[in-house]
Formats: sequence, C-alpha cells, structure tokens
Amino acid sequence: MSGTVTDLGEVQTIRRMLARLDPPVHPLTLPVGGDCAVGPLPPGEWDVALASDPVIQGVHFEWGSPPAGVGHKALGRVLSDLAAVGAKPLWALVNIVARPDQSVAWLEAFYDGLNRLARRHQCDLIGGDLARGADFQAHVFGVGITPKATALTRASARPGDVLFVTGELGGSRQGRQFRFEPRVAEGQWLRAQAGHSAAIDLSDGLATDVRHVLAASGVGARLRIHDLPVAAAAAKCGDDRPPWVHALTDGEDFELLFGVRPAQAATLAAAWRQVFQTPLWAIGELTDQPGQLEIQTAPAARWEIVSFTGFDHYATHA
Amino acid sequence: MSGTVTDLGEVQTIRRMLARLDPPVHPLTLPVGGDCAVGPLPPGEWDVALASDPVIQGVHFEWGSPPAGVGHKALGRVLSDLAAVGAKPLWALVNIVARPDQSVAWLEAFYDGLNRLARRHQCDLIGGDLARGADFQAHVFGVGITPKATALTRASARPGDVLFVTGELGGSRQGRQFRFEPRVAEGQWLRAQAGHSAAIDLSDGLATDVRHVLAASGVGARLRIHDLPVAAAAAKCGDDRPPWVHALTDGEDFELLFGVRPAQAATLAAAWRQVFQTPLWAIGELTDQPGQLEIQTAPAARWEIVSFTGFDHYATHA
Repeated sequence: MSGTVTDLGEVQTIRRMLARLDPPVHPLTLPVGGDCAVGPLPPGEWDVALASDPVIQGVHFEWGSPPAGVGHKALGRVLSDLAAVGAKPLWALVNIVARPDQSVAWLEAFYDGLNRLARRHQCDLIGGDLARGADFQAHVFGVGITPKATALTRASARPGDVLFVTGELGGSRQGRQFRFEPRVAEGQWLRAQAGHSAAIDLSDGLATDVRHVLAASGVGARLRIHDLPVAAAAAKCGDDRPPWVHALTDGEDFELLFGVRPAQAATLAAAWRQVFQTPLWAIGELTDQPGQLEIQTAPAARWEIVSFTGFDHYATHA
Repeated sequence: MSGTVTDLGEVQTIRRMLARLDPPVHPLTLPVGGDCAVGPLPPGEWDVALASDPVIQGVHFEWGSPPAGVGHKALGRVLSDLAAVGAKPLWALVNIVARPDQSVAWLEAFYDGLNRLARRHQCDLIGGDLARGADFQAHVFGVGITPKATALTRASARPGDVLFVTGELGGSRQGRQFRFEPRVAEGQWLRAQAGHSAAIDLSDGLATDVRHVLAASGVGARLRIHDLPVAAAAAKCGDDRPPWVHALTDGEDFELLFGVRPAQAATLAAAWRQVFQTPLWAIGELTDQPGQLEIQTAPAARWEIVSFTGFDHYATHA
C-alpha cells in the first residue's frame, strides 16, 4: 500500500496523477512527458491569453480542506482569469510542490478536482512538474485564445456604462472557494456582444477589483448596495459585519464584473438570460469621477464615497 | 530603507521587481497587470510550445546562492526546454513565493538575473504572481512557437544516427548551474537542418536523459566516454568518482543532445561550426537494441552495457 510520495517515488507518483486525467480535447503535436508540450492552434487568427496562479497551503487553503476542492480552486482561478478576457481555454500546466510525506491518495483526489473542472471547460491538463518542498503548492499556468484583437480589457469602460455582476458575492470562505464556477462560457459570449466595455473577474473582492477597472479606464463607479447579489453564506461568517460588507470585500467570488454601454444594457441582459442560467445583476453605473467609488446602501439613501483597502499578501491581518 | 517584502507590501514589491525588466520585444495586446497577458502571434502558421519549471530553495539552490544566478537558472531551465523542441521563445510568466521577511534587494537581484537572460534570448517576462510561503520558490512558465509541425521530438531517432552533444558536461554544482547558456538559437537552427533526428536538453544528466530518447524512439545507444566534453569543474567535485562519471550523471548541464542521420552528420557539424561558437561533439551512435545503453571508456576498450538510475525528487540520497 503506497501511502506517500516517497514510498511511490517521483515517476510513479506522476503516473498516478496523470491517470486521473481525461484524454485531451485539443490534442498535442508533442505529447505530455517531453521537454515541452507542443500544440497546434485551430485555424484562424488568434491572440494568445496567458495566466498563472498559485494555491499555497496556509495561504489559499488550510490543511484539512477537501483535496478535490483545492484542485478545483487551483485550476478555477486560472480559468476565471481567462474568462475575464473572453478567452477560450485550451491547455493548462501544473507545477506541484509536495512534502516527502505527502499522501498520494490526497494528490489523486486533488487531480480529480482539477480534472472535473478541466473537462467541463474543455481545458486539457498537459504538463508540469513535481518537486519537493516544505508545504503543498500548485502553480497552474493557463493558455487560451481569443480572436485577434478582441480580448476584453479593464480599460474600455466609459462614464454612463451600466455595471453588471454575475452569480453571487460574499462568504467564499464558507466553502464556495472550493466549488465556484469560473464564468468561461459567459466571458467568451460577452466578448462577442455589441456594447460590452471593461471586464474583470472578482478575485480580491468587488470593492477592490472594481477599482482596477476605475484605474485602467479613468472612470468612477456608483454601486447600489441594495442590488448586490449577496450570497446566503455571507450572513454566516460569524462576525458582526453586515452581509453586504462581505459581498464587497471577501474576495474569491470568481464572478465576472463588466460594463455595458447604456444603450445596449437592456438588450444584452435579456439576451444573456436566453443563453445562460448564470444570474446577471445590474448593480450600478460608471461615472466621470476618476477613481471615485460611491455606494448607496438603500434605494433612497444618499451616495457615500468609500475607501476600502485590498488584500495584501504581506499585510498583517487582524 | 525598505528591507523586506513585508516592509514594502505586495504592490510596491511587484513594482520594484517589474522595474528591473527591459521593455518587451514582443509587445502585448493587453499589458502586464490585468487578469491575463494577451499577445499576438507573428504572421504564419505556428505550433505553441509550453514548458514550466520551478526553482525551490533547498532543492534547486541553497540559501547563500547568488540571487542573480538563481534568477538565471529559473528562466534558463525553461528556455532550455524550449530549445530542445527548437522553439523560439516569446514570453515567460513567473510565480514568486516569498517569506514575509524576504529581502527586496535579493528579489531585485533575482529579477536582474532573469532579465539579463531574457534579453539575450528575446523572451519577454510578462506576468505572474507574488504570494507568501515558507521558502523561496519561483515557478517559470515559458511560451514559444515553432513553425507548424516542425518541432524537434525525442521520438524520431533511428539506429545509425550519430549522437551529438553541445558545450561541456559535469560539475554543474561547481557554479555552472547559475550561468549555463540555454541553447536557444542552436535548437532553432537544428530544427531547420536536413538530417536532424531526436533532440533533448540535458537536465538530469546525460546517462538519464539519453534514455528518454532511447525509450521514445525505440533505439539503443553507444557512447564513447573518451569523446565526452568533460568540464574542468567535473574534476573538482571533491569525491573519488572520475570526472567522466560526473559528466554522465551530474545533471543540470542544460546542453542539447541530438541525433543526426549518418549521411548528413559531417555536413551538419561543419555547418554548425560556421554559425556557432558553441562547441559540438560527436559522442556516439544509436543502435537497434531498444533501451540498451553501452559505453566504451577508451578507444580500444570493449563495449559495456550500463545501468544508471536518474534523479528522483523523493529518493533518499546519501
């Protein structure tokens, strides 16, 4: 009974992980296992979209988290980045760092989580590395494509654009961080619609990520708090902050936030609802006050300028 | 005086690292700093080549190693993988994991090492991530291109092919691991030559890596030990093993090993010497004995079948 990575050895461990994967949807010219994976692009003129994200034990998950959920999160973070530019995922590579006493069964479950999400979004896991380290880490690199010069950006928003968000926000630490659905199909669809403007995925929390759009586009935003899709989990965080504060600041929602020109907003939202089950919410508008974020906590309340600070990996958290 | 990553914070640390980089040679459609980097491919029909490698403190380098050398090694490993398939590097992404007390000056020197090598091989560093962890790690993800269906492989060798190796072998731990030159131009040139067969880069040591070619191509090999380009450093390893054993087994040479059809071998070697300063050595031939590795330790000596075991991240080393 091979319990740990050391019992099994590097080569056999890699085989056991690769055995959890589906056959590729986008076959390679050179298969997994060589110096590089080499794959052909489909016919047409493409831009290549590249993203990389880690999940690190003690930072992005705690020991005791469900391994399939950690695998889901590892790939999901990257797929969410690809979704935010409207890219179609093709391939992902995974560098695994594991302790010598790492259980192989845990790694297999981790790969099952990766594989299930990869299958759903037709993203082939095609390579990577296994190395020794002090704690578990997975670094996932994702490769996608967009038709030439069509990628969604953070920089194309204009004052007056209606601000939409997908799904629900807040309470990710209550479990949704391990089962969120990256909005891959939605991002590609949005890229092809008339009237779309800036887009971003919500990884650090709406209040932080909207500011990236404001900075890149040189606009401001007004958010109607009473229209936020607050997750039920945001009320179960065990602190005294109202659920809407969690929805603004928890992070790891991996929903899409995007603008639509006012003339196209109603049409686009109606078309969305024909295509997707994923909920879509109009939560505010963009303004001509660069960098300024205003919120309204109730329909008739006055607009308040707010400042929130984002997540800093090296800040001291209470 | 901002000493550590914690003093400076995540955003400022990233700015300080990015400030060490040259402007891009292959400009992006979407710049660094968004969810994805998005870049256009040059005109033509391309395959995409993808490689990922880590450098981990305590595994791939020891604390006290020169930080610029660690940066060099981090990118060099990936460029060497791209060289082995004959790909032209375009972009690399770097995930950095650093302790809260990581010195920012060390990170800047690390980035200087990355940047110098990237500049030489026209590979733009375009993205990545900075996160907290128990020890320093850098995970580099490289993206290159090859003209459609031309990538070098490990699988195209045939019995009779002449086996060549570049540069010199052995003693990488004496310092060359931090200053090797990945054979990027040589790999691309080789890809375009008549008569080339299988190719691989030497990361785990000639004796191990040649077996990957034998396995992929279904051939055997005879190596003339007296023709190996043994590095002077291989004699200074402070143990009683002869230098040629270091040349066969030390690993991290990051030289190219490749076959050439016998009829083209002399022509290709002569053409090489017109183009490159990089030494090229004929060190043996491929045979029709699948998986069998034979060595001859002196010109008139008999051929001996040898077995070596490769580096295993989870094996217990003496």
